[in-house]
Amino acid sequence: MPINVDRIWRDIEAIAGFNETTPSVGYSRPTFSPAWRQARDYVIAQAEATGCQTRIDAAGNVHARPRDLPSDAPAWLSGSHIDSVPTGGKYDGVAGVVAPLEILRAAREDAKPIALELIIFAEEEGTTFGLGMLGSRAWVGELTADDLAKVRSTSGQNYLEAGREHGVRPDDLPRERFNRSAYIGLVEIHIEQGPDLWNLRSPIAIVSSIAGRRQYRVAFHGVANHAGATSMRTRKDALAAAAPIIIQVEAMARDLSPQTVATVGRIDCRPNAINVIPERVNFTIDLRSPNDALLAEGHERITKYVMQSAERREMRCELTMTEDQPAMQLDQTICARLKRAAGEVSMAVSGALHDAAILAPQVPTAMIFVASKDGISHNPEEFSRVEDIAAAATVLQNGISGEPSP
Amino acid sequence: MPINVDRIWRDIEAIAGFNETTPSVGYSRPTFSPAWRQARDYVIAQAEATGCQTRIDAAGNVHARPRDLPSDAPAWLSGSHIDSVPTGGKYDGVAGVVAPLEILRAAREDAKPIALELIIFAEEEGTTFGLGMLGSRAWVGELTADDLAKVRSTSGQNYLEAGREHGVRPDDLPRERFNRSAYIGLVEIHIEQGPDLWNLRSPIAIVSSIAGRRQYRVAFHGVANHAGATSMRTRKDALAAAAPIIIQVEAMARDLSPQTVATVGRIDCRPNAINVIPERVNFTIDLRSPNDALLAEGHERITKYVMQSAERREMRCELTMTEDQPAMQLDQTICARLKRAAGEVSMAVSGALHDAAILAPQVPTAMIFVASKDGISHNPEEFSRVEDIAAAATVLQNGISGEPSP
Repeated sequence: MPINVDRIWRDIEAIAGFNETTPSVGYSRPTFSPAWRQARDYVIAQAEATGCQTRIDAAGNVHARPRDLPSDAPAWLSGSHIDSVPTGGKYDGVAGVVAPLEILRAAREDAKPIALELIIFAEEEGTTFGLGMLGSRAWVGELTADDLAKVRSTSGQNYLEAGREHGVRPDDLPRERFNRSAYIGLVEIHIEQGPDLWNLRSPIAIVSSIAGRRQYRVAFHGVANHAGATSMRTRKDALAAAAPIIIQVEAMARDLSPQTVATVGRIDCRPNAINVIPERVNFTIDLRSPNDALLAEGHERITKYVMQSAERREMRCELTMTEDQPAMQLDQTICARLKRAAGEVSMAVSGALHDAAILAPQVPTAMIFVASKDGISHNPEEFSRVEDIAAAATVLQNGISGEPSP
Repeated sequence: MPINVDRIWRDIEAIAGFNETTPSVGYSRPTFSPAWRQARDYVIAQAEATGCQTRIDAAGNVHARPRDLPSDAPAWLSGSHIDSVPTGGKYDGVAGVVAPLEILRAAREDAKPIALELIIFAEEEGTTFGLGMLGSRAWVGELTADDLAKVRSTSGQNYLEAGREHGVRPDDLPRERFNRSAYIGLVEIHIEQGPDLWNLRSPIAIVSSIAGRRQYRVAFHGVANHAGATSMRTRKDALAAAAPIIIQVEAMARDLSPQTVATVGRIDCRPNAINVIPERVNFTIDLRSPNDALLAEGHERITKYVMQSAERREMRCELTMTEDQPAMQLDQTICARLKRAAGEVSMAVSGALHDAAILAPQVPTAMIFVASKDGISHNPEEFSRVEDIAAAATVLQNGISGEPSP
């Protein structure tokens, strides 16, 4: 049966209904929150209703594959995530989960066995535990149980503690690790989150590569003191030390290349009072480029900016690289296969990072982008046409059937 | 009887015990919090035990005067505040409350009537309701019930709602307003909160003037979007728009005069996530100078900095002046009187603002500063010698007795 647009629409709306905030401020499904769990349970129930067996692996990722598929038959893997940034949109991650779910439904209607396993990767965004793509990284063995015990949510729980009641089992991580021989390839469908496809009026594109990302945590330690009685000469203001770096990081990205971006997205000031000199400022830097050499150059400059500001003010500071993900070429054979299935189609580079980048070194991997209205994402205004999501699902459906594996 | 150092020490320690946080991170008594209420009740109980009648005026300030003082006899007024900044120190405000409390005790022991009214001003810091010296301002009629209904705590309650159970009565504000004929003068004892006296090894100083203060709230409205998929060219980053102003404000204060200070003490970023471009940044500016012309010049520059950044990025912004308190000369006659009582003593200018600045236009007003170790304040490390606080109390005790009123 062909892909059913209405069912995809219903799935998206159902998942949007599981929300820790209200739609007017956005969609919030932090990993392991009640809303996140309800969304996950919804997808599991839908997959089981369509004849799938489901399991949660030791890292917390959900797997659903047709019961009539022999357990040792290699399968295609497709999926994305259902966790969201705070007050994000309806489509980020969700589009790539509901598309393979619909392909499984269509195959079931045809009573035609399909070698496809749906996956929901846990904690893709990194906004809950401070490091993105935790689920896929732990699955492929890039992160160990010790690593997962070190990342903490703002409420202070580590990933293992917080994930226990959602199926995370550190002792089983080695045994349930990603097994190359079980899979033919991975295709992740995702919204573009940039404006190019929308401006080109292209509903979808095949993604040829994914930009690399380095992320940093920076802390400046000043001295809290009275904002009126402490002269400019004697104060140690942690926010004044941080501010130049925000500006330098922005200028640096513009300077490195048009495809390089850098963002200070988070800043926390203590005690954060109008009449107290800031004692402690923590902030993050997110640097991305499709060019690994530019990531390395950015790293040097960020280090220099932070050290210069700390030295100039004789202030203690810490700079920690919390992520170092190289740029990733996707599999040309699968890209070509999807291109044949799609007919006339654009090619794209992903500025955003995805679980596909973690799987790419392990198994032939590709991505299909769906146009994002005006490129708006991580925002309640995020919008993609459900017809375009269905078009991506159709390309995937056609791409993985009929032809021999790559 | 002379001032008793031990009793002052006990009062300070008792009040420090009423704390919303733990001493290791600091002392937190936000206005109307349980700890604040316990501290207030402690002072009231101590004053009543020493023969005072106490009342809470309609604005929430506490008044305690000896029962044996005729109700129509003009009295000296002395007091300060017990609310604190978040994670502040033990002495800010508290020193100026326990000193007149001890003077009242000493007078009671002598069975000598003393024309002294102790006052605890409500919400001096402004960190709970966003505007400092609310209690004194409402008492002198500078703020009306309507104004008090407009200031809100972070939990969303306005001053009247939050203060109701602590004695705030908007309908009685006009009737209970400050009455000039009831008072001879005001003397506020306060820790210096700057390093000058400590460095000079002067335990106390008579304050001749108080710097003026302007405070501002600034908001930049950017667009939340994906930190990886949104090019530097097309993003609208509210934090990048705010950062240059933090730097400009600091440089401006250095440029205006050695006595001028400016601080961005508070910054809040939304959604505040590592991989999302900041949509909304709110921050505060606190500008102080003993020179009103420099406050006016600073105002012009701040307005220009904010407008320039907003225009350059075509970003919506709001700049609101939340306070405009001119510099204040204190009463020369009272200063001279205190100087005579003190003998050899330093003179000082207060960079910090105090309730005394609000009362100064209404009644002859002076202040006595107590040395602050290394000038540290608004910080758990804040320290003043209890002997120096006792010395200030002795000067006040001697200054207000024996001589005719100014």
